Amino acid sequence: MSKIKAAVVGYGNIGRFVVDALLEAPDFEIAGIVRRSIANLPPELAPFKVVTDIHELGKVDVAILCTPTREVEHYAEKLLAEGINTVDSYDIHTSIVDLRSRLDKIAKQHGTVAIISAGWDPGSDSVVRTLLQAAAPKGVTYTNFGPGMSMGHSVCVKSKPGVKDALSMTIPLGTGIHRRMVYVELEPGASLEEVTRLVKEDPYFASDETHVFAVPSVDEIKDMGHGVEMIRKGVSGKTHSQRFEFRMAINNPALTAQILVGVARAAMIQRPGAYTMIEIPVIDLLPGDREELIRHLV
Amino acid sequence: MSKIKAAVVGYGNIGRFVVDALLEAPDFEIAGIVRRSIANLPPELAPFKVVTDIHELGKVDVAILCTPTREVEHYAEKLLAEGINTVDSYDIHTSIVDLRSRLDKIAKQHGTVAIISAGWDPGSDSVVRTLLQAAAPKGVTYTNFGPGMSMGHSVCVKSKPGVKDALSMTIPLGTGIHRRMVYVELEPGASLEEVTRLVKEDPYFASDETHVFAVPSVDEIKDMGHGVEMIRKGVSGKTHSQRFEFRMAINNPALTAQILVGVARAAMIQRPGAYTMIEIPVIDLLPGDREELIRHLV
Repeated sequence: MSKIKAAVVGYGNIGRFVVDALLEAPDFEIAGIVRRSIANLPPELAPFKVVTDIHELGKVDVAILCTPTREVEHYAEKLLAEGINTVDSYDIHTSIVDLRSRLDKIAKQHGTVAIISAGWDPGSDSVVRTLLQAAAPKGVTYTNFGPGMSMGHSVCVKSKPGVKDALSMTIPLGTGIHRRMVYVELEPGASLEEVTRLVKEDPYFASDETHVFAVPSVDEIKDMGHGVEMIRKGVSGKTHSQRFEFRMAINNPALTAQILVGVARAAMIQRPGAYTMIEIPVIDLLPGDREELIRHLV
Repeated sequence: MSKIKAAVVGYGNIGRFVVDALLEAPDFEIAGIVRRSIANLPPELAPFKVVTDIHELGKVDVAILCTPTREVEHYAEKLLAEGINTVDSYDIHTSIVDLRSRLDKIAKQHGTVAIISAGWDPGSDSVVRTLLQAAAPKGVTYTNFGPGMSMGHSVCVKSKPGVKDALSMTIPLGTGIHRRMVYVELEPGASLEEVTRLVKEDPYFASDETHVFAVPSVDEIKDMGHGVEMIRKGVSGKTHSQRFEFRMAINNPALTAQILVGVARAAMIQRPGAYTMIEIPVIDLLPGDREELIRHLV
């Protein structure tokens, strides 16, 4: 059976771990890495084709978008229209439905598949959240994140003028309420006050208690471990007090990357269109014979 | 929008809770209850059509099979061939692939859908197990059940000659190892030794440490609470020690029934064939507008 040819678009935190996950996957080959520049390549990329234009890679079945979340739409639209499936971990919860609807149209026109917002939250957590809603339709699910570094929030802060490097820690306060502890390494002459204002105004931070601190080195405090605790107490039929908990303690980009590789596989067998993870069967994330999977997992 | 017409086939523990869950579902109506006999109907069935032959109910979209697990195949084959979708919570793990394959053929011939083994384990747990396998492909998942009453195991024991009533308690010993504590109320003259032998030989019990006790009344010790703890430690890409836990403490038949109603809904929108829960998108378990669901759950 021929392997799935995947291009890794963007080589930051997530891209690095996607390469790891692709190397471990039995059914993938790495068509190449797409970067903005091919100057100063990190040595671990020596075995791979690294290009600035995906067309230089020949046939690509699926592009795994590891760019900052706000560049996802631009790349996805372009690639879907060129006949390449895309997957991403777009993480602005309030814009997911709109992104899906825009990409769905393009994907259907061009016979391609996009699976969006496929990291761990949004992503695998969304699958658990949906399942728990089905298991006990009335009730409340609380998703508590952390303590841990939020990649999306850190990238967001780093994009602000005056910020050289940034780390945004998510602190769970229970019942889905979080504090954001933001550590910034400032450019010379940048104002912490101004950066703080820009961060607090951003939709990523606007609804959470947020504290911004200047530190001499972000690298010194960086740890990419993260966690989640999802809790639902609800009603199945007329029976109250059904209780569910989902917890994980994980390396954040490693899990995101693994999920991206799973949905890249799933993208190959969906009908054209754009999907979130709750719209695709979980078995499609896995390689191998389906009956064997059912035998071991159901 | 017209409601989904569901027939409840069998009115034991699960059937009772399925009626509850259907009454709470906004998109279902109860076409009726199918029982072996309509003598001595429990008073709560007064509002419903109760019949011995499903054809007396008029149009039925989906039959929710709440019979003992070993009668599932017989009913499913017959109903699928007559144009009625079926869902069940068939729970003999080792025979699921075969059942799926036999029903798949019949369902495809007749343009119907079967969703099998859709309770909580097999069922919703299977979805979590598959998702965790995708999140960390290398590693071991341990599923620890209980302490709680196993419906399938209790029904199995009750079916043995000489047993008037039975309760099988599942005791988790960790790392997926369980003890079965079986309490039987014997018919006059029945031999505990003979019943013990029949129970221990049954595939339901053969691989677990099993103890059988005679009690004067099973009803006195019956509590339908149950629980599960699923644990996975595994590798995402090349990153080790990713940790996941899923726990629940639930009323067993109430959760099974709620899941059955969810898959009955999902059965209406799958292509013809037989499916396990890991083969259908979790969003299909829920009623309501899909974009709204995505907005709230992804």
